[in-house]
Amino acid sequence: MNGAEALLRSLCASGVDTCFANPGTSEMHFVAALDQVPAMRSVPTLFEGVATGAADGFARIAGRPAATLLHLGPGFANGMANLHNARRAQVPLVNVVGDHATYHQRFDARLQSDLWGMARTSSAWQRTANRAEDAGADAADAVAASYGPPGQIATLIVPADVSWNAGGVVAAAPPRAPLPRVAPETVEHVAKLLRQEPPVALLVGGAAMSERGLRAASRAAAATGAKLLCETFPTVHARGGGLPDPEKLAYYGEMAMAQLEGTRVLVLAGSRSPVSFFAYPGTPSDLVPPGCAVEMLGSPGQDVVVALEQLAEAVAGPGGVGGPGGVGYLAAARSRPDRPTGALTTETMAAAVGHLLPEGAIVVDESITSGLSVPAATAGGPRHDWLALAGGSIGQGLPVATGAAVAAPDRPVLCLEADGSAMYTIQALWTQAREGLDVTTIVLANRSYAILQFELARVGASGEGERAGAMLDLHRPALDFVDLATGMGVPAARAHTADELVELLDRSLRTEGPSLIEAVLAP
Amino acid sequence: MNGAEALLRSLCASGVDTCFANPGTSEMHFVAALDQVPAMRSVPTLFEGVATGAADGFARIAGRPAATLLHLGPGFANGMANLHNARRAQVPLVNVVGDHATYHQRFDARLQSDLWGMARTSSAWQRTANRAEDAGADAADAVAASYGPPGQIATLIVPADVSWNAGGVVAAAPPRAPLPRVAPETVEHVAKLLRQEPPVALLVGGAAMSERGLRAASRAAAATGAKLLCETFPTVHARGGGLPDPEKLAYYGEMAMAQLEGTRVLVLAGSRSPVSFFAYPGTPSDLVPPGCAVEMLGSPGQDVVVALEQLAEAVAGPGGVGGPGGVGYLAAARSRPDRPTGALTTETMAAAVGHLLPEGAIVVDESITSGLSVPAATAGGPRHDWLALAGGSIGQGLPVATGAAVAAPDRPVLCLEADGSAMYTIQALWTQAREGLDVTTIVLANRSYAILQFELARVGASGEGERAGAMLDLHRPALDFVDLATGMGVPAARAHTADELVELLDRSLRTEGPSLIEAVLAP
Repeated sequence: MNGAEALLRSLCASGVDTCFANPGTSEMHFVAALDQVPAMRSVPTLFEGVATGAADGFARIAGRPAATLLHLGPGFANGMANLHNARRAQVPLVNVVGDHATYHQRFDARLQSDLWGMARTSSAWQRTANRAEDAGADAADAVAASYGPPGQIATLIVPADVSWNAGGVVAAAPPRAPLPRVAPETVEHVAKLLRQEPPVALLVGGAAMSERGLRAASRAAAATGAKLLCETFPTVHARGGGLPDPEKLAYYGEMAMAQLEGTRVLVLAGSRSPVSFFAYPGTPSDLVPPGCAVEMLGSPGQDVVVALEQLAEAVAGPGGVGGPGGVGYLAAARSRPDRPTGALTTETMAAAVGHLLPEGAIVVDESITSGLSVPAATAGGPRHDWLALAGGSIGQGLPVATGAAVAAPDRPVLCLEADGSAMYTIQALWTQAREGLDVTTIVLANRSYAILQFELARVGASGEGERAGAMLDLHRPALDFVDLATGMGVPAARAHTADELVELLDRSLRTEGPSLIEAVLAP
Repeated sequence: MNGAEALLRSLCASGVDTCFANPGTSEMHFVAALDQVPAMRSVPTLFEGVATGAADGFARIAGRPAATLLHLGPGFANGMANLHNARRAQVPLVNVVGDHATYHQRFDARLQSDLWGMARTSSAWQRTANRAEDAGADAADAVAASYGPPGQIATLIVPADVSWNAGGVVAAAPPRAPLPRVAPETVEHVAKLLRQEPPVALLVGGAAMSERGLRAASRAAAATGAKLLCETFPTVHARGGGLPDPEKLAYYGEMAMAQLEGTRVLVLAGSRSPVSFFAYPGTPSDLVPPGCAVEMLGSPGQDVVVALEQLAEAVAGPGGVGGPGGVGYLAAARSRPDRPTGALTTETMAAAVGHLLPEGAIVVDESITSGLSVPAATAGGPRHDWLALAGGSIGQGLPVATGAAVAAPDRPVLCLEADGSAMYTIQALWTQAREGLDVTTIVLANRSYAILQFELARVGASGEGERAGAMLDLHRPALDFVDLATGMGVPAARAHTADELVELLDRSLRTEGPSLIEAVLAP
């Protein structure tokens, strides 16, 4: 068995059975080995940023890592922006990167680059496989490392001769260890804080935004009068179906500061202390109000869900959902928007989504400015999961939707995608078509980098001029997403009115396989 | 004047008047400053790989750097693959990368990443601008550094507060220094080597593939019987119009070894000692025959053109083109292929290009396997420049064509683009449409990663299996490049026969502005 086959078999033995791949010459032995290892599903992509983003989306839904297969330094580089996002999402992810043969590297051939240096910028764990005999164990170690906790990026660099040499041995990662528990004293301490006057604020993030986490956090908040907030860009936010709907910390610092104003103690559960997304002249980076203490119930690397359940029991009594003697969680009211009609605006678009959102949907949100009304329009809808732009680097939505659909073939995936962001990794549509993935993409076409038009004013730049403005518009020429999707094999249509959007979305959600709707928003 | 405006004005004062831009919030003051600095042409792109590749193409044709404007670490990461190519092309290139405000970085906001570490992987020079007062001088230093010699990548990281703070001072880079001359003794030594028996081989690359370099190299070779070879992936190769047409070193190592077989002395002029592009089991990486001495006439950082002219004078006598008493260069025969007809194959496609290639054309070659017949079909044509895939990272062609067209608005640009490679940076088409650039793209649609099908066999991988093969084909679904181009505002049509290609290419070359032809090659 050569190193490549041992590596593939070891990934499978370690629970990694899906690979998003952009191979090149140095990875040909992996490609050949696919026929020997049918347990590994290999999904081709046309650009590495699709592969890494899809691995992120897969991990968010499957709760376990996918692998990527990348080609040398430049291939890794193309995947780096979405690795940045995956790093911020704290998902487990294993990169397998082919490199030149060990003896070839000193010749500095054209494609040689500082792959090790590139990997270091986003990988919490990295290693170069040095021998075919070790490649299997290296792969198992990579999988184990990817789990963290919290989840992180593990990059295994595999020289071509390590792949093609004989002597490979299959290895398996040990079973994933349970998450470290939060100390009982910490839970007790936070319970005391929550009982204090004036009420504290509880900011949940990460795993605390799961069903169990949100129910427990809501019970604890309801019993004590604490203010419940959640982070702005969650990895997976369980929503709908009557789940608690905590107030989301706003993207813009001044709005977040208004939400936190008067808070004397801020308790973090799976979240980080809030900071401004960007700096702006004359505004603070740290959003914690002056004099407010920040206390940690549990970090993203701890079992924050259990800690929240213990906290809820301490302050609200035992029991499940409003159990005996206890206080229940604050269930969101179940209601859907009426079927919208008339002009297609950000509001009627949101209503259309809320009106039709199917049970069990996965919503991938890269809607940037155009999607601001969607959360309110869907909170009362059926149970769904919401996947946000965790690292802030645009070009994540279509790939994450692709990977989520691979992880959950029986769930509908709805991708809300801004037009400017969509163009970063538009190649994802081809993979959706090739794999027949059930993804409905709504491209929100405002034909500009609208957020940058806001930002131009917000940073205090004058930007009244014609040349500055021209840098931020996308209408000369307008992008035709129907043509773009059709060109990659994804059926597509355009909506100019709310009625057209409802009709197209309804049809798309009833149809298997990928589709795209370009929603041309009224200015 | 704020730091951003001083930086823009300093770029202009240093001879950099073109910027390929993907700005974000941290670069809004640059965008605003564009209205104050009309001398700077800012070209928006939809993806950073387009910006960096366009800056490469611009530099190859203009002979001076363009700037890129990139957003934080992830934006830089998206541009890195084409920075790798630009690094290998040894072009001057200046990256301006916005970063979080100095005081914001310690908060590790979502978009924070190891930008410095990323920049280090491709930049020969890098600096963080620390004060608005210094930003102008930093920009001037970046431009000066980019010239090398040889040309290299200079990256200036600009925190947002350095951009928006007042106190900016305009600076200018000193005039570009002349290239260091090769020592007369070296020229004399090489002249002696060339006069030896058996004849030596002269391998030209870099600037030696200019008009003057090739004429001089050809004279020296013709006078001495030396074998004249040129590098495989030149930055700019002056061709046609009767210029000498040296034999190109083959991409595949075993073919290159056959070309070099029996060589006792290999003289390098602007080129590197030949090495295999990839490693393959059982084949050498170093392509220099055993026992062959390698001698350097001039490195890429030296004035190798003058050295070749001195060498030609030493071995062939004085004078220009076959001057008095001297030996002339070997002019290529002027001949064009007949107008092809019938099936559209790689051969008839090449004949169509050779039949119609316009005077002064810039040919950007990312044709990979499908374009192998084009060089022979165009060598006898009119004078043109040939820009190759200098770093081997696919996704360079469309961006390089974009930048070349910006640099030379009066010259027709013909981009020969493989379908698999085209999809890496397909967003370049939008910039071509927006700027009305005179680029004709021929997408060579074999609907596969054909080179990888070869490579799968070459590396000794079995790869007979269905699953391995499926990873390398692009026909399920087929990409429709007519739709893709139309979707980005570029007129497009499809050719299924040689006659259709001739007709479409002829029309496209006669029409201003961008266009795309999908050439569906017979299997």
